Amino acid sequence: MHLDALETPALLLDRPRMAANIARMQGQVDRLGCRLRPHAKTSKCLPVVQAQFAAGAQSITVSTLKEAARFHAGGIRDILYAVALAPGRIGQALALRAQGCELSVVVDSLAVADALAVACAEAGTPMPVLVEIDSDGHRSGVRPGDPLLVAIGRRLAEAGLLAGVMTHAGSSYDLDTPEALAAMAVQERDAVLRCARTLREAGLPCERVSVGSTPTALSATDLRGVTEVRAGVYVFFDLVMAGIGVCSVEDIALSVLATVIGHRADRGWVIVDAGWMAMSRDRGTASQRVDQGYGLVCEPEGQPMPGLIMRAANQEHGIIARRDGSCLPELAQQLPIGSRVRILPNHACATAAQFDAYHVIEDAAVVDRWPRFGGW
Amino acid sequence: MHLDALETPALLLDRPRMAANIARMQGQVDRLGCRLRPHAKTSKCLPVVQAQFAAGAQSITVSTLKEAARFHAGGIRDILYAVALAPGRIGQALALRAQGCELSVVVDSLAVADALAVACAEAGTPMPVLVEIDSDGHRSGVRPGDPLLVAIGRRLAEAGLLAGVMTHAGSSYDLDTPEALAAMAVQERDAVLRCARTLREAGLPCERVSVGSTPTALSATDLRGVTEVRAGVYVFFDLVMAGIGVCSVEDIALSVLATVIGHRADRGWVIVDAGWMAMSRDRGTASQRVDQGYGLVCEPEGQPMPGLIMRAANQEHGIIARRDGSCLPELAQQLPIGSRVRILPNHACATAAQFDAYHVIEDAAVVDRWPRFGGW
Repeated sequence: MHLDALETPALLLDRPRMAANIARMQGQVDRLGCRLRPHAKTSKCLPVVQAQFAAGAQSITVSTLKEAARFHAGGIRDILYAVALAPGRIGQALALRAQGCELSVVVDSLAVADALAVACAEAGTPMPVLVEIDSDGHRSGVRPGDPLLVAIGRRLAEAGLLAGVMTHAGSSYDLDTPEALAAMAVQERDAVLRCARTLREAGLPCERVSVGSTPTALSATDLRGVTEVRAGVYVFFDLVMAGIGVCSVEDIALSVLATVIGHRADRGWVIVDAGWMAMSRDRGTASQRVDQGYGLVCEPEGQPMPGLIMRAANQEHGIIARRDGSCLPELAQQLPIGSRVRILPNHACATAAQFDAYHVIEDAAVVDRWPRFGGW
Repeated sequence: MHLDALETPALLLDRPRMAANIARMQGQVDRLGCRLRPHAKTSKCLPVVQAQFAAGAQSITVSTLKEAARFHAGGIRDILYAVALAPGRIGQALALRAQGCELSVVVDSLAVADALAVACAEAGTPMPVLVEIDSDGHRSGVRPGDPLLVAIGRRLAEAGLLAGVMTHAGSSYDLDTPEALAAMAVQERDAVLRCARTLREAGLPCERVSVGSTPTALSATDLRGVTEVRAGVYVFFDLVMAGIGVCSVEDIALSVLATVIGHRADRGWVIVDAGWMAMSRDRGTASQRVDQGYGLVCEPEGQPMPGLIMRAANQEHGIIARRDGSCLPELAQQLPIGSRVRILPNHACATAAQFDAYHVIEDAAVVDRWPRFGGW
């Protein structure tokens, strides 16, 4: 089937680009001597994860227990749930273990470490637990040097649950030079290595040392002591990643196909049938050097149309215009009503979540349809 | 079932508040002597539309043809598809008419008016068409005074399709005083009345004169000459509407229930298991006088917790903190791990779209579960 036969808005996944992105990250993590544990929250799609496994991955990261259950049902065994476990979710996590899922979980509080120790003992089910470390102050985790780390580690170790430490340098998303990114990769690594040493010096085990974000994973040059790297968005890449500098616009494998439904020639606007419901409300490039609006506009075959972005979005309307605000009268002729454009997203995780399936393309041919799931 | 038994994040719909919102808008539009045509894009949920019908509505507006098909299958007949029709969608629209749906559509170009005239003649199926008018320069439509209006109207009338004119004063969302809102309601009304007069003076029919947005609908005092009012978000209301001043925070019927999963007491942060995947990335209050972050935090029973908002969001993490940035050390005691909060959304249409169902509540009791649909 040709691309032209799709109804719009449609979510497109360029398979050759995805394959190149997967190979690039797998090669990078292999060279660093670590295991790659792709974050499946980006795709929420079994065939995508299967492509990551075909390239060498043997485990995944997830952001919800629903992802864990779905991917386990699809044959994936080794799964890290990388959001601090809520006490009310312990039963679900234990049920997954009982079904044969090699689930591991994350805690950053004594309260949940304690609840887990009690629940695992009662159930007679072990559960490998990583202590979340705050390596950059952006969100959750125990700070290196905080005595809480050993307290949590000891409580978990007493119950036979302590597996190691993990961190996510999410503030790497705010950087945009190779030097700053490389420094952040070092900072992320050093934070977990210090915490692993602290645990071991306290006589506690620390087998797994896990780091990761797409920008730091691609910027690291020495991860000795780290056992695994987690990264998610690299599988598709997006405009935020291009703005950070870890991919080019030509690497972005995800886009939204849209149809022109109107013009405001006096303002230089082209109206398309993809609004924020299709692109998501993510404006991650707003704080970057190049603001891409709600997305960068490309020809239907994928070539970027220089300077053209989705400037504004309503629920089902996107307003396409020049980034610099200039009014190009010939735009209406160039993009007549009924013609199509492809729009690259700011944030692949957010845009993909607006759709229930990927239309898998190779050049202009639609070769498959891969379902994705949402919800909790 | 008590609210406490729900897994989080969960989308809550307070039925008494919704009923009051529906009654308020129906009463307002009744007083103005118009028909209310609720926009179902907000709820995408048949029981919500049925509640609007029980209160007096007899027709709906939709933003996609999927909504039209779903609501028609649910027994709703009179449906306006209020996004300019793409030529490639004409066949679908005609198929809905052939199934007995009283569908009407919107155009703002001669190209689509012409394509519709040809397709309707070929199919032998009439299709009432409204010409979209630009009353405020915010998006699509023919400007009042543009000779294009009569050209489109004539082409449609020749084919027996011209039903009237419609507009949507979307820039009412940028206002926040009763005076400015009342003036925008007048501007919206006057733009379509002028265009209706233009068509009639050209000897063309203009039976339907349709206006609408929640802020202008609630601010209008005289809509003589207008036949119908469209409004969507009023059914739930949200923080953007509260910021505009057309509802109070206590009117907001939609919220997200979340569980505390961690703390950063040193920063005054409480981490919950609802991030942007639950709240959406909508930051509609960022440009208002009171920035509500990703949402206003309430007790699980619904009372707002003064000054507490979701300051930042990752995919499955929300960071709750004081709006003024001050660090309240007792917050961690007030909201221990495992406790719950309810978060009011910036934009009801965007937040609801992140879920596949509403948990319908009355006080703290969950009394029903209403599915909603997404996609195109």
